[in-house]
Amino acid sequence: MIVVDWGTSSFRAYRLADDGRILDRRSAPRGILTIEAGGFPTALDAEIGGWLGDEPGDVVLGGMIGSRQGWLEAPYVECPADLDSITASAASVAWGDRRVFIAPGVVARDANGVPDVMRGEEVQILGMAEALDGEGATVCLPGTHSKWVRVERGRITGFRTFMTGESYALYRRHSILGRLMPAEDGPHDEPAFLEGVRRCGEAGGLLHHLFGVRSRGLFGDLKPEALSSYLSGLLIGHEIREAIAAAGAGVIHLIAEAALAERYRSALAAFGRESRLHPSEVSARGLFCIGRRIGRG
Amino acid sequence: MIVVDWGTSSFRAYRLADDGRILDRRSAPRGILTIEAGGFPTALDAEIGGWLGDEPGDVVLGGMIGSRQGWLEAPYVECPADLDSITASAASVAWGDRRVFIAPGVVARDANGVPDVMRGEEVQILGMAEALDGEGATVCLPGTHSKWVRVERGRITGFRTFMTGESYALYRRHSILGRLMPAEDGPHDEPAFLEGVRRCGEAGGLLHHLFGVRSRGLFGDLKPEALSSYLSGLLIGHEIREAIAAAGAGVIHLIAEAALAERYRSALAAFGRESRLHPSEVSARGLFCIGRRIGRG
Repeated sequence: MIVVDWGTSSFRAYRLADDGRILDRRSAPRGILTIEAGGFPTALDAEIGGWLGDEPGDVVLGGMIGSRQGWLEAPYVECPADLDSITASAASVAWGDRRVFIAPGVVARDANGVPDVMRGEEVQILGMAEALDGEGATVCLPGTHSKWVRVERGRITGFRTFMTGESYALYRRHSILGRLMPAEDGPHDEPAFLEGVRRCGEAGGLLHHLFGVRSRGLFGDLKPEALSSYLSGLLIGHEIREAIAAAGAGVIHLIAEAALAERYRSALAAFGRESRLHPSEVSARGLFCIGRRIGRG
Repeated sequence: MIVVDWGTSSFRAYRLADDGRILDRRSAPRGILTIEAGGFPTALDAEIGGWLGDEPGDVVLGGMIGSRQGWLEAPYVECPADLDSITASAASVAWGDRRVFIAPGVVARDANGVPDVMRGEEVQILGMAEALDGEGATVCLPGTHSKWVRVERGRITGFRTFMTGESYALYRRHSILGRLMPAEDGPHDEPAFLEGVRRCGEAGGLLHHLFGVRSRGLFGDLKPEALSSYLSGLLIGHEIREAIAAAGAGVIHLIAEAALAERYRSALAAFGRESRLHPSEVSARGLFCIGRRIGRG
């Protein structure tokens, strides 16, 4: 089986054995935003054509490739969502003389009826289901749009998205806050980062705390090189503060690249919460589970 | 006396009678960011040279013209700040054979020692001192960087800045949220705005609520033309929610242009708070008070 985690900015393919072991992997900066409309079949062939033998073998894609901007829009599955309901809503599309399956996204509605959506993260959750506590677990997937997901007995029962990573980029690159910072981010400043994390619990709220990045810079309370780490701490702190208010007790499961995982681990510790890191390759396992279920269905 | 409210993006000059009445006014899009270093004396001459007679007459400037990017950096006065301390810290600089006075900014430190700054708003506060209740009043000056100011017996005792207007521009113009909106903002959508204001009190916090602009747009809960008003309501709602938690009882005094004032009036009413609008020309009155005090000093 071949599976691909095909996101907005990256393409990660895995060739899998019958038992799901990863035999081969390749990645490329060929996210869906880099590919013209109609160009997905050709791009897929260019990346994984060499893996295709004579045997049929399933190809399963997950991530933003299933969005309106992707190859084919796969609908959103309602929460609670599990392997069965996600597999049942997978879309399929012809690719030469093969068929490709595209995993759907998931939608949750909160107590006020406001929808929230994910696409790609549900595959990672499925891929780590065995590691999650049966009774109820909280998974945090930090990034451009961080997701906090509640999983109970293998089902995604609810989640929330936070615009943390994108907000950092906005304030860093496009707001007045960036003007006091060096042009490029230097090394991470952990004490400044933790000052930002702690600030989130003080009076005034995020819109006020953000302006403090400027005023503390103006008064020399923080050095210019420390301001971006402080800003990062503020935003991550506000995210975590709200998210853990809704999370149950117990360890927070993290799926993130190493540098970001370290920031979240450190910030969670400042809130007195333990975390456990899982590799982002769990998406290969999740897509494998979907492919195997399709094969049986 | 001639007074000028000289901000980042605009220049507003007033020629005043001996009792402070406005005899003449002119404004130009010649904020300090539009003027090259060293160009301030010439720019001032071009705008108000025609008003200068033979009599000496004071010229008093306020706003960002006193910042590091302005004509001359006037220091920040510590809170509590009043007409006396603000006047005492005014800078002065030669302008041909005259002298020009530049009002200082004000700095407040919160309970945690974090500084906050204003420059220009303190002049507006001084200009409306007579309208403020002697015991304690709350003044809200919405905008790019909204200020909420506590005034007691003519003294500015503390304030907070919120990056509300700048955040709106960032998310509207540079984030994924703008992609579902029409290229240009249409007419204000009051019901969508108030939905945003009410959302701020629900679980999840600002970073989560912001993503809801996208998910509600994706699901057709809100029309594309309504999303920018909803975003505006979210941000203004979060600002007001935090600000009134620190404000005393009583009316909120608003200094804003008409359209923005109407949004804040409406949002404050949703929080059950009454507001009273004051014209932004109060800055002329505030600069007059400073000029008169300098003349006597």
